Amino acid sequence: MDIAILGGTGDIGAALALRWAYHTDHHIRIGSRTEEKAAAASDRYVTTLADYDVSASIDWGTNDDVAAGADAIVLAVPPYHARGLLETVASVLTPGTIVITPAVGMKRTDAGFVYNPPSTGSLTELLAQSAPDKVSVIGAFHTLPAGRVADLDADLGMDTFVVGDDREAHAVVCGLANEIEGIRAVDAGGLVCAGAVEACTPLLLTVAQRTEKMNDLGVRLV
Amino acid sequence: MDIAILGGTGDIGAALALRWAYHTDHHIRIGSRTEEKAAAASDRYVTTLADYDVSASIDWGTNDDVAAGADAIVLAVPPYHARGLLETVASVLTPGTIVITPAVGMKRTDAGFVYNPPSTGSLTELLAQSAPDKVSVIGAFHTLPAGRVADLDADLGMDTFVVGDDREAHAVVCGLANEIEGIRAVDAGGLVCAGAVEACTPLLLTVAQRTEKMNDLGVRLV
Repeated sequence: MDIAILGGTGDIGAALALRWAYHTDHHIRIGSRTEEKAAAASDRYVTTLADYDVSASIDWGTNDDVAAGADAIVLAVPPYHARGLLETVASVLTPGTIVITPAVGMKRTDAGFVYNPPSTGSLTELLAQSAPDKVSVIGAFHTLPAGRVADLDADLGMDTFVVGDDREAHAVVCGLANEIEGIRAVDAGGLVCAGAVEACTPLLLTVAQRTEKMNDLGVRLV
Repeated sequence: MDIAILGGTGDIGAALALRWAYHTDHHIRIGSRTEEKAAAASDRYVTTLADYDVSASIDWGTNDDVAAGADAIVLAVPPYHARGLLETVASVLTPGTIVITPAVGMKRTDAGFVYNPPSTGSLTELLAQSAPDKVSVIGAFHTLPAGRVADLDADLGMDTFVVGDDREAHAVVCGLANEIEGIRAVDAGGLVCAGAVEACTPLLLTVAQRTEKMNDLGVRLV
């Protein structure tokens, strides 16, 4: 598959790019607002992968460039930019493109991180409403600790919750998740369930904020 | 400690009663709307514990009876009864009593279970607002699979997220959780974070609804 990671220079974008390039044969494209940033990130990932004896070819370009014709795009940007980014690239998406959203709106308070969804109920649902026809939005990868996932030596042993109404697209994203060694895709329901999935991210950040040695954790159902 | 489990005849009440009686020396009191039901449940728990060579004395009575003078009460009732129950027993609570709430409001849909909090943000916060002065509300035990926890042979190896603003009461509840073998208390923040914790319950139920062999699961941060 051709997977475009928009905002692919950030933490979760880097983690997914490295892992897919390492564990799979998918064709990865790194998108950013500027070509230069995307090229630099792609170089970094290729160099890292070379250290693991993986000869990867990772494309790069502006978000628009890499989104065009991709089988799946990941909106690896801060939550408040996700909708605008999707609207920006909407015209270049092919019917059937899967839009994957890992972002979560939240507020940091002294008592912990608080989930802060849009009034639609969740960012995933908001994006689904904003997406062009024949483009399905699937929520996934919210709870992955990006730094740890980006470390190709790290054992993960964790789950990712996958939500979405288009069951075919949902199955594709579960497949993409399961191809990463140590990650198990878990069906967390339709779009209406996305809020409960997104809320796990502030929960994990709160635990990290309050307890030493409990940072960079993921979730495992046991 | 004297721990009164109100609605202690139900699934999560049974699980906590059995585990505390099995692993600790706390004094357990089972409350119900009628004395008869509470007595019958207490008998069942004592019989089960005897099978494990534990000679337990488990008190019973109406919810009012057992709440009076307890160090902690667990509101082990359906979410839409929790506030009414707390208001009913408020007058018999001693200052310093800790109120523990494991309940979560949710709706079942074809696409999965949807978290359905009150307008205050979470049931935990609603109860905190309804509680008498000098009585602290702590959220805990939401994600425990009751049937499995009630099975004293089961290895648990799971976490419970504990939320609350009164840090002294929070620490006590963490202690009560950690005393159950195989359960680890995790600090999930203040009351403002309770929604993210409560939302884990519909997430787990959705997974169970949609995936064979993924029922009766708990959560472990890894």
